[in-house]
Amino acid sequence: MDPSRVDVVLVRPARPANVAAACRAMKNMGLRRLRLVGGPEGETMQRADVRALAYGAWDVLDGAERATSLAGAVSDAALVVGTSSRGGEGSWTARRLALEGASRAGGGRVAVVFGPEASGLTGEELALCHQRVHVPTDPAQPSLNLAQAVLVVAYEIAVGAREEVPAAIPAQASAGEIEAALGDLGRGLLGIGYLNPRNPEGILGEIRGLLVRASPTPREASLLRGIARQILWAAGRIATVPGGDG
Amino acid sequence: MDPSRVDVVLVRPARPANVAAACRAMKNMGLRRLRLVGGPEGETMQRADVRALAYGAWDVLDGAERATSLAGAVSDAALVVGTSSRGGEGSWTARRLALEGASRAGGGRVAVVFGPEASGLTGEELALCHQRVHVPTDPAQPSLNLAQAVLVVAYEIAVGAREEVPAAIPAQASAGEIEAALGDLGRGLLGIGYLNPRNPEGILGEIRGLLVRASPTPREASLLRGIARQILWAAGRIATVPGGDG
Repeated sequence: MDPSRVDVVLVRPARPANVAAACRAMKNMGLRRLRLVGGPEGETMQRADVRALAYGAWDVLDGAERATSLAGAVSDAALVVGTSSRGGEGSWTARRLALEGASRAGGGRVAVVFGPEASGLTGEELALCHQRVHVPTDPAQPSLNLAQAVLVVAYEIAVGAREEVPAAIPAQASAGEIEAALGDLGRGLLGIGYLNPRNPEGILGEIRGLLVRASPTPREASLLRGIARQILWAAGRIATVPGGDG
Repeated sequence: MDPSRVDVVLVRPARPANVAAACRAMKNMGLRRLRLVGGPEGETMQRADVRALAYGAWDVLDGAERATSLAGAVSDAALVVGTSSRGGEGSWTARRLALEGASRAGGGRVAVVFGPEASGLTGEELALCHQRVHVPTDPAQPSLNLAQAVLVVAYEIAVGAREEVPAAIPAQASAGEIEAALGDLGRGLLGIGYLNPRNPEGILGEIRGLLVRASPTPREASLLRGIARQILWAAGRIATVPGGDG
């Protein structure tokens, strides 16, 4: 996986030092694009002791883009991976990400998302991710510092890039296209009474999980939107019935 | 290579913060024994901000042994590897150390030696080492922070020690279950006018392709059938409209 096609997304990082050290780790490994969702701003990021931690990577630090939501920060990524210290069923190791990420992204961009130091990504944030990734650690002290976690993932990507043989891969829908299709589908399924209006997200989350596993092509994503809109159309026709004045 | 058989030796580290962060990285990866040749002592190592960087690894920090010379620090190691940012002929990558270190050490202890932040190990110190090791980095910013270098080497040793266990694979829907879901979906999409009745198979084939790539679980396949049946139900409600006698 080409490191220049990988974005690092830090969600609500608490410590300026970690953001700066993450920049250095990224640049050490050839990653250049950082996106911040919340986190320290302005003067704290300009402190000399903080900038010293981004040694040689001030371009990454100063070029960091800010997004107001995680969904916005990853909308142009074909594969969104959420890091989680917990690992768990289906979670990839960082090494597996390095080996399989590019083919799952189909040549598109990959966003690697890291949560806040103390709490990690929320369940809702992880639900926006297509794949979980963890760094294997020792059970006696499993909790990695944020910048250290960024380093290991970036390192695996860099090492993997030197070894891999590129394969021909079909183009893939971006996270934004998939979310748009899911949004339409959600409205359609609500319209025909399939989803519970009080909790549509549970089932939609399951459908998202299925979809992202399949890595839809842009054509397939637009086909799904077409189906969703037809369902919505059908729902509109139903709505005229109950009144009995059709 | 068993991480508990690996010692980390820091030679004249300048910054207390790096020593502390190295301790945390070591413990994250199951390495426990640190030896210091020179470097910060006494009160600076007791500062709260320094100790915070050794989060969860205070046993490693407080248990660090001091040696007056590099030769003394590595005297009980069967294999002494010296890290160098320069790489160069004959230098191993950190990954190769993880793969070949144990056999080179013949079951004895391995000492991994890191030099001062600014200058690295001297030629004399490297001459005491049996093997050079480097962490591959990007030429645009090759210089790793000391604690980051310790982390990558420790990480490789830890990952090498546990042969990666394949992730548990969730149960998958049978081909029959997938076809049943597709059959229902086909009828539903015909009912709401999405599929061309003269050629429903083209689009259905594309949906099949997407689905089988995702390897749905039995739960997901039944969820798809539920959606399909709800679409079919909606289609039935529509069909009563055109007569105008609703």
